Amino acid sequence: MKAEIICVGTEILLGKIVNTNAQYLSQKLAQLGIDVHYHSTVGDNTERLYLAIKRGLHRSNVIIITGGLGPTVDDLTLEGIAQVLQKKLILNRNILKDIKDHFHKRHIPMPKENVRQALVPEGAKALKNEVGTAPGLIIRWHEKKVLIALPGVPAEMKPMVERDVLPYLKKNFSGDWVILSRKIKTCGLAESQVNQKVKDILKSKPPLSVGIYVHTGSVDLDITVRSTNKAIAEKLLNNTERKINSRLKKYIYGKDSQTLESVVAKALTKAKRTIAVAESCTGGLISKRLTNISGSSKYFPLGVVTYSNKQKRNLLGIPKEALDNFGAVSKEVATLMAQNISQMAKTDMGLGITGIAGPTGASKEKPVGLVHIALATPRKVISEEFHFHGDRKAVRLRASQAALDMVRRYLIK
Amino acid sequence: MKAEIICVGTEILLGKIVNTNAQYLSQKLAQLGIDVHYHSTVGDNTERLYLAIKRGLHRSNVIIITGGLGPTVDDLTLEGIAQVLQKKLILNRNILKDIKDHFHKRHIPMPKENVRQALVPEGAKALKNEVGTAPGLIIRWHEKKVLIALPGVPAEMKPMVERDVLPYLKKNFSGDWVILSRKIKTCGLAESQVNQKVKDILKSKPPLSVGIYVHTGSVDLDITVRSTNKAIAEKLLNNTERKINSRLKKYIYGKDSQTLESVVAKALTKAKRTIAVAESCTGGLISKRLTNISGSSKYFPLGVVTYSNKQKRNLLGIPKEALDNFGAVSKEVATLMAQNISQMAKTDMGLGITGIAGPTGASKEKPVGLVHIALATPRKVISEEFHFHGDRKAVRLRASQAALDMVRRYLIK
Repeated sequence: MKAEIICVGTEILLGKIVNTNAQYLSQKLAQLGIDVHYHSTVGDNTERLYLAIKRGLHRSNVIIITGGLGPTVDDLTLEGIAQVLQKKLILNRNILKDIKDHFHKRHIPMPKENVRQALVPEGAKALKNEVGTAPGLIIRWHEKKVLIALPGVPAEMKPMVERDVLPYLKKNFSGDWVILSRKIKTCGLAESQVNQKVKDILKSKPPLSVGIYVHTGSVDLDITVRSTNKAIAEKLLNNTERKINSRLKKYIYGKDSQTLESVVAKALTKAKRTIAVAESCTGGLISKRLTNISGSSKYFPLGVVTYSNKQKRNLLGIPKEALDNFGAVSKEVATLMAQNISQMAKTDMGLGITGIAGPTGASKEKPVGLVHIALATPRKVISEEFHFHGDRKAVRLRASQAALDMVRRYLIK
Repeated sequence: MKAEIICVGTEILLGKIVNTNAQYLSQKLAQLGIDVHYHSTVGDNTERLYLAIKRGLHRSNVIIITGGLGPTVDDLTLEGIAQVLQKKLILNRNILKDIKDHFHKRHIPMPKENVRQALVPEGAKALKNEVGTAPGLIIRWHEKKVLIALPGVPAEMKPMVERDVLPYLKKNFSGDWVILSRKIKTCGLAESQVNQKVKDILKSKPPLSVGIYVHTGSVDLDITVRSTNKAIAEKLLNNTERKINSRLKKYIYGKDSQTLESVVAKALTKAKRTIAVAESCTGGLISKRLTNISGSSKYFPLGVVTYSNKQKRNLLGIPKEALDNFGAVSKEVATLMAQNISQMAKTDMGLGITGIAGPTGASKEKPVGLVHIALATPRKVISEEFHFHGDRKAVRLRASQAALDMVRRYLIK
């Protein structure tokens, strides 16, 4: 089965936004063993959109169109589809009710343009939009062709894809190919260090391929196996994962959709430990990441951002002498922050972070990127000095990553 | 002049990487006044690549191809171009020397595959690659058509584009066009409400175009003017901006690269005011955003994340009765959080946020998305109840946006 993804939006062609939808959908289709042969993007232009859909129907089995489903006159996807398929647009009362409910819940009167979003081509199956107002559509053209239209806003599209589109495609269009993949995420090593440790594995040949992908604070390995035999594919995937695990050991913090904070959340829950956080340079980022996880109130009662020396003294009780003698960015102050926040919040552990995020605030002795992190545990305080590179955003992200990773490594020991 | 961008690479179609090259090139072409009508991506497949190039030459004036110029047999772009243009591939001795030098400098013997990269279609102008080995190519097909091939690795492509491609296009394909654009960012209105207020402006005709772009917590208007006369373009841009300002007034928080936190930072600095933040559902996100800005310690000394009722009592001194009678998610508790954090930190203002970010923690009376925000100012407390939609991430982001916007609106009054 051949698939293609058509994205609609002048903002993509003007370079105003990057096309992440094409990537997301491609990953999902690859997991179903459906080959994506083309991505294309056209603007909000009737003729070019019409031609793109027509070409798609001619050359592919699964055509996914994203964008152009909004309520304004610029949104042309529905008209384009109706024109290519020579179908009428019909008012769908269920969708209209969903749209009305959407506005009602938010105590806003429904603008009359939004009625347009309830017009769908004859015979289309409508997909409920739980986040916004534009419904998705599945239109089975004939046995081997389907046209799927989805909203362009990722937060609206993704739930629809997971809930409706993937099960539909799996049932009707997924061939005999199995594509399995696994992402292995590491923290604490540079790309070149990871590369050196798995150099031979990176040279794997089909049906196995292994790639290295670098993000701020995380170097990931991606294993992909493609086969018609699921058992063989699984075995190869698992063997490769084991091999990588044995090389990178403690540097691996998670896999696939896991984030460092989700792994830490799980470890804290499992160990029945609680933690409090006192931040300076990361400015709340660590608390924010810990609370990304629903249910985090079970192990995280308190975070503070003491962004001035005065607040480090007043709120955390860091002695003036410590600040004067060692400076706010020091192992000693990080340690006191960790110990004192843990005492204040009566938690098992406390995390203290202080550093120079830049671009201002640096000195010769304390350059941008210097960060001290301390983790107070019931038995001892673990502390580490880091020198991160990059701009303010990168330094803060790397610091939060290193801090959470200290918690993870302590808990898994 | 119509342009299109063709990206070559199976890794893009598998969703392993996001196609940032298309965005980068589109932005650059837009600045030259060259209209990009299509993006397309094909894999490392001779036939589909051939057809894509052929279609490009037929329908566009400027065809930029990225990727597929590497040394391996998978890299098919040169063969594809030669085949479509019916040109021979000829060994270019200057390029071969560059490639040899590249390896020589790194003390690595040149692998013999790399000789392939010195084969270029007859008549092509080669562009030196200062970072890697694949040269770029400019092939003038006839007066109004040009085919440009560039390496897929962004770090190799970008210097070539800046140094060679843009000057070439500016001279030969851009004409005298000037494109000016401005983004106007709003907060507090739904897309449909913004749409309603500027409906007529959104229907502007060339040389003016105005589009609406929705992000979580921000609805932006993008004004673009395209003209051969810079003075006229500027006037039209400024007039349109003024017209939009008069319609959306207080809902506009910034423009172009400004973020809500950068605008709030500026307003706090200008007014010489300080602020402290007590968060619950946003979990540190507001402190994190305020401290995104370098120098924020001048106006932001303290943030706390009281993620349990106990910490709301102990640290912020919220009376047990308030929590029992009104619940943690209430106007009363948000107000006390705002007042007490401001007193604790001795700041001019205090922000208190409490809500249900979801997916757990909701009740019939207090659904997911309910958020109370209070801003304590020297004279009074402003409080507001919000009902945000979306998942945990969206609710938290919208809540942080609404809170920062309350600060902004208070300060600009």
